[in-house]
Amino acid sequence: MLTEAQRDRIEVVLVRPRNPLNIGAAARAMANFGFRRLAVVAPYAPHWREARSAVGAPEVLQNAKSTECLADAVAGCTLVAGTGTVTRRKPEQAVVSLPDLAPVVDRELARGGRVAVVFGPEKHGLTREDLSYCHMLVEIPTDPRQPSMNLGQAVAVCLYELARRVFLTEKDTPEAVAGGVRSTAPCGDLELLAGVVEETMTAAGYSPRGMQPANRHDLRLLLRRLALTRRDARRILGLFRRILWRLNH
Amino acid sequence: MLTEAQRDRIEVVLVRPRNPLNIGAAARAMANFGFRRLAVVAPYAPHWREARSAVGAPEVLQNAKSTECLADAVAGCTLVAGTGTVTRRKPEQAVVSLPDLAPVVDRELARGGRVAVVFGPEKHGLTREDLSYCHMLVEIPTDPRQPSMNLGQAVAVCLYELARRVFLTEKDTPEAVAGGVRSTAPCGDLELLAGVVEETMTAAGYSPRGMQPANRHDLRLLLRRLALTRRDARRILGLFRRILWRLNH
Repeated sequence: MLTEAQRDRIEVVLVRPRNPLNIGAAARAMANFGFRRLAVVAPYAPHWREARSAVGAPEVLQNAKSTECLADAVAGCTLVAGTGTVTRRKPEQAVVSLPDLAPVVDRELARGGRVAVVFGPEKHGLTREDLSYCHMLVEIPTDPRQPSMNLGQAVAVCLYELARRVFLTEKDTPEAVAGGVRSTAPCGDLELLAGVVEETMTAAGYSPRGMQPANRHDLRLLLRRLALTRRDARRILGLFRRILWRLNH
Repeated sequence: MLTEAQRDRIEVVLVRPRNPLNIGAAARAMANFGFRRLAVVAPYAPHWREARSAVGAPEVLQNAKSTECLADAVAGCTLVAGTGTVTRRKPEQAVVSLPDLAPVVDRELARGGRVAVVFGPEKHGLTREDLSYCHMLVEIPTDPRQPSMNLGQAVAVCLYELARRVFLTEKDTPEAVAGGVRSTAPCGDLELLAGVVEETMTAAGYSPRGMQPANRHDLRLLLRRLALTRRDARRILGLFRRILWRLNH
């Protein structure tokens, strides 16, 4: 799992980006996943360092390295990974799927290397020439019917994968959660039930008017926690309808 | 691993999105990862169905469901997962980290359920009221110093995680690739070496002028495939410098 010092040995490189908003979006994703080193190669527009889309990440843009060519941007790196989606051309480099990238990067960092993750321009991605500066091609596995990703989204997905387990907090295990979500009653049924229960509460004089919004909220939470099956939900609904009828007659 | 039919039982729900470009970006990410069912709850701007950012995904927007409230959007779903980044508030629902979401969703789909993945508005995300319609909160693990994600990027990251192993193609194993990337020579050294080798080729009359760009390209690929250590690279550089000196005298 990557430490902060290791993440600082990973460089995000944007090659010939056209839209400054995408450069800003890349910087924002970097801040989200704890990366700081950005290099921009031959950007199309000036003033990209002021891109407003770099929410929470202006210093990533301010500190970004700007170079004329890809060779200069990756000169200090020992592992250069070019990114792309599933392509028609036969790659000339080793190909790694994004879900398999983390151990490769971990190993390179563990032996003291520096890693670059390289993204091509918006329209067509990295060229064959760009890729000749790369040790490997990282494929983001996408639907072959629509492989072309937005640049900012591609950066976000790649950095999420690299930092996937870095920022996990202590919480319920997936098993506990799965156990707690046995419900197969669709939400529409739960809402119907909540409505009748609430009507019953009112008819029974259970909740003072001021408490009704709070009760409604808690009721919604409760019904989901109960993990009712569809049949359970119907049974309880029948019961409350009966009670309500009684209360009103 | 999700089949296409299963992905069609997963609904992406955007609650009160403000910027139509973000709705389009969400649709684009859906097409990238093979999802088709979008619901938009109380969108701020009209004409969002024409968002130009939905590159390759206009039909996702055209076929999107539009509802006035979240309850209607998820009425047919048996598992509703609200998304958010690491939050300060204490959640009232079970919390699952995004990297642990896939098995929970798989199980729900396997028992015939329908799943909604719900995203809040740009500024503040889902409210406590919105979350009361959710069975669980899915946390995207982000750097606590900058947890706020762009909406389109958050959707891309979540759908990537769910479809992470769906679109993998046959390729080199990560081990083979790692073995092939033993190089620790930084790229700057490789470029220096490539330059001297190329000069030598010219001095030796090896490559006709017309072939030089192609040779340069192949040389770059070769040097990276060799996986040179820094010391190897220096040694070879010394050799070629010597040869070059001889050729020129």
